[in-house]
Amino acid sequence: MNNDLNKFFYPKSIAVIGASSKPGTLGYELLGNLIKFGYNGKLFPVNPKADAIHSIKSYKSLLEIKDEVDLVIIMLGKHLVLNAVDECKKKKVSAVIVITAGFKEVGDEGVTLEQDLIAKIRKYKMRLVGPNCMGIINTKSDVLMNGTFIKGTPVAGGIGFVSQSGALGASVLKIIEKYDIGFSQFLSIGNKADVSENDLIDYWKDNPDVNVITAYLESFSDSKQFLDVCKSVTKNKPVIAIKAAKTSAGMKAASSHTGALASADTVAETLFEQSGVIRVNTVDDMFNLAKAFDRAKLPLGKRVAVLTNAGGPAILTVDEAANCGLEIAELSKETQAKLREIVVPEASVQNPVDLLPPATAQVYGKATEIVLADKNVDAGILILGPPLMFDTVEITRYICDAANRNGKCAIVVVMSQDEIIAEVAKQMPVHPPLFNSAEKAAWAISEMYKYKQWKELPEGKVKKINVNTKGVRSIINKYKKGDCYLDFNDVYDILNHYKMPIIETRISKNVQQSIYDANKIGFPVVAKVFGRELVHKSDVGGVALNIQDEEDLINVESRIIAGLKEKEMDSKLEGFIIQPFAKIEEGVETILGAVKDSKAGHLLMFGLGGIFVEVFKDVKFKIAPLTDIDAKTIVHSIKSYEILKGVRGKKSVDLDFVEENIMKLSQLVTDFPEFIEIDLNPFVFSPSRSKSKILDARIRLVKK
Amino acid sequence: MNNDLNKFFYPKSIAVIGASSKPGTLGYELLGNLIKFGYNGKLFPVNPKADAIHSIKSYKSLLEIKDEVDLVIIMLGKHLVLNAVDECKKKKVSAVIVITAGFKEVGDEGVTLEQDLIAKIRKYKMRLVGPNCMGIINTKSDVLMNGTFIKGTPVAGGIGFVSQSGALGASVLKIIEKYDIGFSQFLSIGNKADVSENDLIDYWKDNPDVNVITAYLESFSDSKQFLDVCKSVTKNKPVIAIKAAKTSAGMKAASSHTGALASADTVAETLFEQSGVIRVNTVDDMFNLAKAFDRAKLPLGKRVAVLTNAGGPAILTVDEAANCGLEIAELSKETQAKLREIVVPEASVQNPVDLLPPATAQVYGKATEIVLADKNVDAGILILGPPLMFDTVEITRYICDAANRNGKCAIVVVMSQDEIIAEVAKQMPVHPPLFNSAEKAAWAISEMYKYKQWKELPEGKVKKINVNTKGVRSIINKYKKGDCYLDFNDVYDILNHYKMPIIETRISKNVQQSIYDANKIGFPVVAKVFGRELVHKSDVGGVALNIQDEEDLINVESRIIAGLKEKEMDSKLEGFIIQPFAKIEEGVETILGAVKDSKAGHLLMFGLGGIFVEVFKDVKFKIAPLTDIDAKTIVHSIKSYEILKGVRGKKSVDLDFVEENIMKLSQLVTDFPEFIEIDLNPFVFSPSRSKSKILDARIRLVKK
Repeated sequence: MNNDLNKFFYPKSIAVIGASSKPGTLGYELLGNLIKFGYNGKLFPVNPKADAIHSIKSYKSLLEIKDEVDLVIIMLGKHLVLNAVDECKKKKVSAVIVITAGFKEVGDEGVTLEQDLIAKIRKYKMRLVGPNCMGIINTKSDVLMNGTFIKGTPVAGGIGFVSQSGALGASVLKIIEKYDIGFSQFLSIGNKADVSENDLIDYWKDNPDVNVITAYLESFSDSKQFLDVCKSVTKNKPVIAIKAAKTSAGMKAASSHTGALASADTVAETLFEQSGVIRVNTVDDMFNLAKAFDRAKLPLGKRVAVLTNAGGPAILTVDEAANCGLEIAELSKETQAKLREIVVPEASVQNPVDLLPPATAQVYGKATEIVLADKNVDAGILILGPPLMFDTVEITRYICDAANRNGKCAIVVVMSQDEIIAEVAKQMPVHPPLFNSAEKAAWAISEMYKYKQWKELPEGKVKKINVNTKGVRSIINKYKKGDCYLDFNDVYDILNHYKMPIIETRISKNVQQSIYDANKIGFPVVAKVFGRELVHKSDVGGVALNIQDEEDLINVESRIIAGLKEKEMDSKLEGFIIQPFAKIEEGVETILGAVKDSKAGHLLMFGLGGIFVEVFKDVKFKIAPLTDIDAKTIVHSIKSYEILKGVRGKKSVDLDFVEENIMKLSQLVTDFPEFIEIDLNPFVFSPSRSKSKILDARIRLVKK
Repeated sequence: MNNDLNKFFYPKSIAVIGASSKPGTLGYELLGNLIKFGYNGKLFPVNPKADAIHSIKSYKSLLEIKDEVDLVIIMLGKHLVLNAVDECKKKKVSAVIVITAGFKEVGDEGVTLEQDLIAKIRKYKMRLVGPNCMGIINTKSDVLMNGTFIKGTPVAGGIGFVSQSGALGASVLKIIEKYDIGFSQFLSIGNKADVSENDLIDYWKDNPDVNVITAYLESFSDSKQFLDVCKSVTKNKPVIAIKAAKTSAGMKAASSHTGALASADTVAETLFEQSGVIRVNTVDDMFNLAKAFDRAKLPLGKRVAVLTNAGGPAILTVDEAANCGLEIAELSKETQAKLREIVVPEASVQNPVDLLPPATAQVYGKATEIVLADKNVDAGILILGPPLMFDTVEITRYICDAANRNGKCAIVVVMSQDEIIAEVAKQMPVHPPLFNSAEKAAWAISEMYKYKQWKELPEGKVKKINVNTKGVRSIINKYKKGDCYLDFNDVYDILNHYKMPIIETRISKNVQQSIYDANKIGFPVVAKVFGRELVHKSDVGGVALNIQDEEDLINVESRIIAGLKEKEMDSKLEGFIIQPFAKIEEGVETILGAVKDSKAGHLLMFGLGGIFVEVFKDVKFKIAPLTDIDAKTIVHSIKSYEILKGVRGKKSVDLDFVEENIMKLSQLVTDFPEFIEIDLNPFVFSPSRSKSKILDARIRLVKK
């Protein structure tokens, strides 16, 4: 993909087709915004009926303009857009923004119109932003482009923001003035007919004007590409995103446990986790965090110091910090002694340091300096409750000065006084992040710390083992086209081809043969019903454990057959699966599975198995192919990792073997994407790998 | 307790001892606030050195005042406070607020001073607020008392707010002006030497000026009283609280599983849940929710409709609503048809209803009316993204008007424009709650719906069964004073006295006797080590299940003894516990326990047992004595309730029997509070009560 979006963000000249001289229209407001914000290049309004708009000479057509045009913004009626694009081609313009709505988002006729538009863009080798979008902003002082029709003035800073919802973009621009959130570049991508969030994020990766990338998404243009792009970007700069529409319908017609546990949001959640993108749920959280990343260094570690003049807020902050996984730094004796010299006697010099209301600006500044200088402090939260008789702006400036000088990660919290934040930001162009909520500051530092850990995590490799792919291919070849579950004996062979430890299994046609098989395997055994349509064996009472001898086996199988008859399901019985009885107590029951999402590909799932699967949903997903780091992460991130490691005197299971098997399954679905659902459940892991066994398995094949 | 706090909130006259004529001092600011806010009664400054303060005649001493004084506010140096209280007594004043700090909160000398103060107050039969507090507010138009030294002007409304942190109270008063949060009464209770949060909450129960009670707490003055007071108040009006200091140290020296799972915050969490108090974590959440309760009716059900002019925010709102347990209402055909008539063609008339940016004030008002009138709608969230070319105040007023006329629960969200909220609130004294975040609106409605369910929940009864208390008492009598675990045979007898199904148990001194006992019970059996100091039996390898015969038993016990010798713990072995082997698969392993908190009394715990206890912590607590409703709630609220009800073809366990046993344990610890820790673990519940058994139990006794 050609990701050179410079013509959009750094145009030397812009033509606005559909500029209007009528106040209140979008065409008037957008051109007005460009002028008011002080655009540094040349502006060319295009309107067949006007001579001049906003005092600038207007052109009847794009082709009338003699100068070169870098960027065209189209705001015509929707049926005029395609013609305008033709003109762009003639004028050799390669970057076009279509503001006009009425395309894909209105369905039917709009969908066709958008397809025609895309076809033209592709043919002409242009890049297109929109349609149905709000425009573009670049606040850099040598560009100063506000190419949107939104009211309000963008504030400069280091945040890049891509928004799929124009309306949300608009309300964001409303709040940035108040909350000291500085944007570098903003793009409303509308219907994403051409330029997508992936293009933007990739473009911003090496753009020195953008320190933090933020995104509001309602859909992924290309999930796989999102994963790849973000994985490389997040190691370089943070990406924070909202993905709305979380509660839409689950994965279509999934019949495996793995499929049932993967919701539509699982894909998004997994994409974010695996690519290191920080997911947030609200616009406030997104920009608070972006501001912190933009204006503060990453914390050195997780030990945080809290400085305050008010006890209550400090306690809530400490609560939230601990809740987010931070530690409350223990201040050194020297730090405490230095603080003691400057504070009132009733003040507390232990963390959280409470200077009490009498603290002046000088005391606050000095205390900030002392606390941040402590080697035990990795980051600081400097809280200022409304002082009773001092100048809040002055105190805040002293705190900011001290924090600036120190340079460590620090967030300054001016409680409940947004006007102070705005004033300080105006007076001090370089300042630490200013928050109005101390809890949010604690949360932001914890997210920055997690991001630091992510950056330091090795990239990981997709490791392949020698497997028998030919064997698997020849099994698949036996099946007709369509959607089906594989026969258990084929599942058994496939897992053996991929060196996964399926338990020794014999399939008998009748009771007589079961006795033979059981003796071959050795009692005690397990007997399970076998039949293509008997998928959920437990649900039909078709599983018997710990069968001691021949007599026991005869009784059990007779009882199962009788039970199926009662349910009128006996015709579905094709035989019995006989396996050795492995005592669950010796290992931990897990579930390992895979399910294919039409866009993101295969999701691998690993977690706690047994009857607790549905209740605790203690499972994690990753998108295949998994690296060794992905496999390790998935194992470490489930709660039951504690159980895998061994509780109450039990030994740890062979964790390397767990990770190896996760990667083997990843290899299997990568080699054979036609396996759309796989459940290895229960997969019992033991301290020794030779005793770790898959007790049951199902594979669903969709052959085209 | 004498809970008549009317003298504090409705005084006809106030004397301010320590009023000052020096601007910037607390004594000057507080008197100034009283005057500026327009206090309707008489004010008497008291200061030996001033003739007049704020143009009001000042008195040398309280006793110089001829008029009756209802309330005295003391702001003297701390060593002058006790004398001032003596003067109050002489003047027959019964309500005193001590603003002065330097008491208990500074330790040592301050603690003594506070004790002296309390002694005097008790002796004089006065009520005291403070010391170390910020004062009192009543915004009612015939009182208009702002008896605080905080900058800013309180806004009138129906919220009562009690704050243990003065500084937090101060920052709250800063934000209420902006966010349309109306207070009725505010009290900063400081050190709570006399008047506590419980007094206030109880007082506000029947106070018609207070619709919603809010509290910021750092400690409970009396947990038991808090539970009793709030239980009765919350059935009448909502109480919303923050309890800070959540992450303090856990319960002291608890050695049971129950104790280990109960943290210091568990007490607070349980107190809130059991008393119906809504717990929140931030000041923003507290007042957003209070505003919703104050200005809107409770929702009729959980079906919510969302109206918007911007897709993105609506999607986030629907996500959050679903996440909070609300349902997205399905609008009737008629509603959709009516909407279709007034909206632009591209608009969506299904929930969420998207009117798109062209929506005018008239369209918004009409659409609000139509949507709220739908019988399928229990509550509405009416979102207004920044309109491009309309007057936001006008649109908001139309929405509010329609919502007012309908009367159903509705929250109006004006995105990112707090100044609009303030303006609308000014123009329309009666209006629905105005929020600046749509997600918060969804959350608030879900909390209101939960509160509605709480109000409708029956009160419940503490049911007692016939037990043998004498038998238990005579067991306790056998023990010396001190702290110990009861012998297992005593535990066995106690549980039998309280009709709890402890499994048949025999205790043998040696292997020989074990064989006899096992034959009496019948193989297969379980053997466990027995010894007062062998408390965690599994951890020392001292539990063997499924022992088939005599030979097996001899081997097992020899192996256990050898294992203990290796650990040099064999001297602690006093014998073996022999019990029948019950297959776990037939029932569900739970844990039922109790642990005593020094302040709140006994907490009962019930939840999932087995190796998952520590990992999933799927347990819930209630404070004893439990009602039948409490017992039912505890069972229904654990996640594993799904497992108790039966999964994958399994039958439900006898849930009535579960609840009965919870109540029996509650009765036991209520009858014998000296049992400070009890673990019934595992307590296996089966479909039949005769097969439900306690497999192991421990009781810790503290005898004084």
